[in-house]
Amino acid sequence: MDRKSFLSGLAKESGGKLLLVVLDGLGGLPGEEGLTELEAARTPNLDALAKEGVCGLADPVAPGVTPGSGPGHLGLFGYDPMAHNIGRGVLSALGVGFPLEHGDLAARANFCTVDEAGNVVDRRAGRIPTETAVKLCARLDGMRIGDVEVFVRAEKEHRAAVVFRGEDLCPAISDTDPQATGVPPKEPAPLDPRAQRSASIVAEFLSRVKETLKDEHPANMMLLRGFDTAEEFPRMPDLYKMRCAAIATYPMYRGIARLCGMELLDSGETIEEEVACLERNWPDYDYFFLHVKKTDSYGEDGNREAKIKVIESVDALVPRIRALKPAALAVTADHSTPCAMKMHSWHPVPVLLWGANVRPDGVESFGERACAQGGLGRIRLEELLGLMLAHAGRLEKYGA
Amino acid sequence: MDRKSFLSGLAKESGGKLLLVVLDGLGGLPGEEGLTELEAARTPNLDALAKEGVCGLADPVAPGVTPGSGPGHLGLFGYDPMAHNIGRGVLSALGVGFPLEHGDLAARANFCTVDEAGNVVDRRAGRIPTETAVKLCARLDGMRIGDVEVFVRAEKEHRAAVVFRGEDLCPAISDTDPQATGVPPKEPAPLDPRAQRSASIVAEFLSRVKETLKDEHPANMMLLRGFDTAEEFPRMPDLYKMRCAAIATYPMYRGIARLCGMELLDSGETIEEEVACLERNWPDYDYFFLHVKKTDSYGEDGNREAKIKVIESVDALVPRIRALKPAALAVTADHSTPCAMKMHSWHPVPVLLWGANVRPDGVESFGERACAQGGLGRIRLEELLGLMLAHAGRLEKYGA
Repeated sequence: MDRKSFLSGLAKESGGKLLLVVLDGLGGLPGEEGLTELEAARTPNLDALAKEGVCGLADPVAPGVTPGSGPGHLGLFGYDPMAHNIGRGVLSALGVGFPLEHGDLAARANFCTVDEAGNVVDRRAGRIPTETAVKLCARLDGMRIGDVEVFVRAEKEHRAAVVFRGEDLCPAISDTDPQATGVPPKEPAPLDPRAQRSASIVAEFLSRVKETLKDEHPANMMLLRGFDTAEEFPRMPDLYKMRCAAIATYPMYRGIARLCGMELLDSGETIEEEVACLERNWPDYDYFFLHVKKTDSYGEDGNREAKIKVIESVDALVPRIRALKPAALAVTADHSTPCAMKMHSWHPVPVLLWGANVRPDGVESFGERACAQGGLGRIRLEELLGLMLAHAGRLEKYGA
Repeated sequence: MDRKSFLSGLAKESGGKLLLVVLDGLGGLPGEEGLTELEAARTPNLDALAKEGVCGLADPVAPGVTPGSGPGHLGLFGYDPMAHNIGRGVLSALGVGFPLEHGDLAARANFCTVDEAGNVVDRRAGRIPTETAVKLCARLDGMRIGDVEVFVRAEKEHRAAVVFRGEDLCPAISDTDPQATGVPPKEPAPLDPRAQRSASIVAEFLSRVKETLKDEHPANMMLLRGFDTAEEFPRMPDLYKMRCAAIATYPMYRGIARLCGMELLDSGETIEEEVACLERNWPDYDYFFLHVKKTDSYGEDGNREAKIKVIESVDALVPRIRALKPAALAVTADHSTPCAMKMHSWHPVPVLLWGANVRPDGVESFGERACAQGGLGRIRLEELLGLMLAHAGRLEKYGA
């Protein structure tokens, strides 16, 4: 039996409230002075939680495996990320609130810039403003290719979701993003004989995109990746008998939360607004997922100072979070994004668990090295939900 | 999906070089002064690696399980030792370079000494020189028993491999080694009705051995154990897209490395010669397994001083190893062999991982207690390969 079915069988209707605070990409590596971003940040409030709570390190998927955001969050929500992999396309479509239907073929799209020879010169089209992307998507939306209908929805900046709806669509199609500049976009190739027709439809779509956007600048083309079809997914409220809510500003994280059965709250834009949203909605749900994106963004930029500032700004809001008295509060990440690497990495993430009946360890501060000494030891990230449920009194005893 | 298939799906063609240094049986227990063999050894170079790298403890099979050399090494090479068990016989045959065919029945043999009453007086025949064993094996090699052909090959000292080739051979046969002196060798008994004929063939072989060797001394008989048939085994180069090489002086370790798809290099005899072999072959492979046997041998002898000396002689060669600049270097063991116990034990092994983008912990020296405080925490030994692959940049990100 898988972990979530096992826990589900123990879940009670009643119990305290759970709050999962995710600092995306929080885990880091030492800078020149020898401290990680989290260790270098001044975090008196998180340190106090660490001191009163129990800490550890968690592998989002498995030791050595660098997770995308999808697997990292599935782990956080108690799903086995090796058993459940969701394509980027489906996450993107869910994130913009697109009402995916079973069998829809979805892809993640980037507006990009190509030169006269057709070579990609900017894979992100200068990160065009979201408003521009919305206008361009409106021009591309609603195309029909044979019996297939195509939906195009803007995400954030240069990002968009494309959904193909029709009979027998197969997601085994290669990415068209060449992951490099100075070369043309790749052709969408079928990775399976059954995907032949789907790949042709995607190719036809892209040729129409090129024609439609030819006089635009800088967004005069689109790159597609992460083709996937929407499937059924077990919902957290059904599994754990909790009303679950997500507070996240970025579409993809909203998408995965929706997929797991969470209601999407009106999160605002800033971290402060996210906490205000949490306070407003506190009485109405049992489980809250609060997502902070910028730790990851600055990690990917290699902007150490800015990543540290984001951590400190979360720390400053901790007193308001504590004041809500969650029965179980976890502060952690979906994966590491060390500024030194400017990308997601495989390093385990620091975990802080605080709440009722926590057995404290000797950890005095919230940092990777301190967490390595923590009472949680080294766990799988998917094990965290069970611990949170336990501390909130939401699991029955197993066996007589 | 099992771990190695999962990792295999993420493996890249390119990346840095991996080096696994195995000090066989390294893990120990405190002596009278309170330090383990590794803690007592003077190891400034390994300590420096530990300080710059990340350390931990690893269970070769599972907590409490004492592994043989086969499972220990399978774990090191990323295989689940609970799912893949290889009989000693197959390992022995592979170790001497015998071209095993599917269905061959192999056993590990020891030359031994029996007295006139037929009782074993020395289970290792005074550890006869390898040259003597080679001559004796030549006399026993090539027997035919019915339609079954028997191959006998010397290993090292009193050890040999025996392979039975014929139709429908079944390995469910009990060992003939009584694991004691003053008693006769055991009869090879079928442990399954299907092994009846195979057991009779083995019995006939042993009776002919006794007859052939009756005038020899001290090697006048043979004990057989670890009956097994050769099966297909997934190869590391196929799984992880690496050219893999093994540097090991003892046949059995060469055997398991060959089974896993490594090429066997000309290793010499001493540890210094093994390191010289590593240097010579460094450009030509992506993954190296370098095996040091004597830590285990002295552990089994209870010779604490000698075990410490071997550790120190490895330490002295670390600068030459570092100079090769492996992207990921692991120093660890296949199991513990504490001098205090004179046998393999279940204690987790110390692990030191050093290389690009390692997240250091506070560990200052390489020892069991220090490793227990390390950033790797307590892992399964089979998880080490994934970590090494990650640090060498040989794994794709998992999921979007």
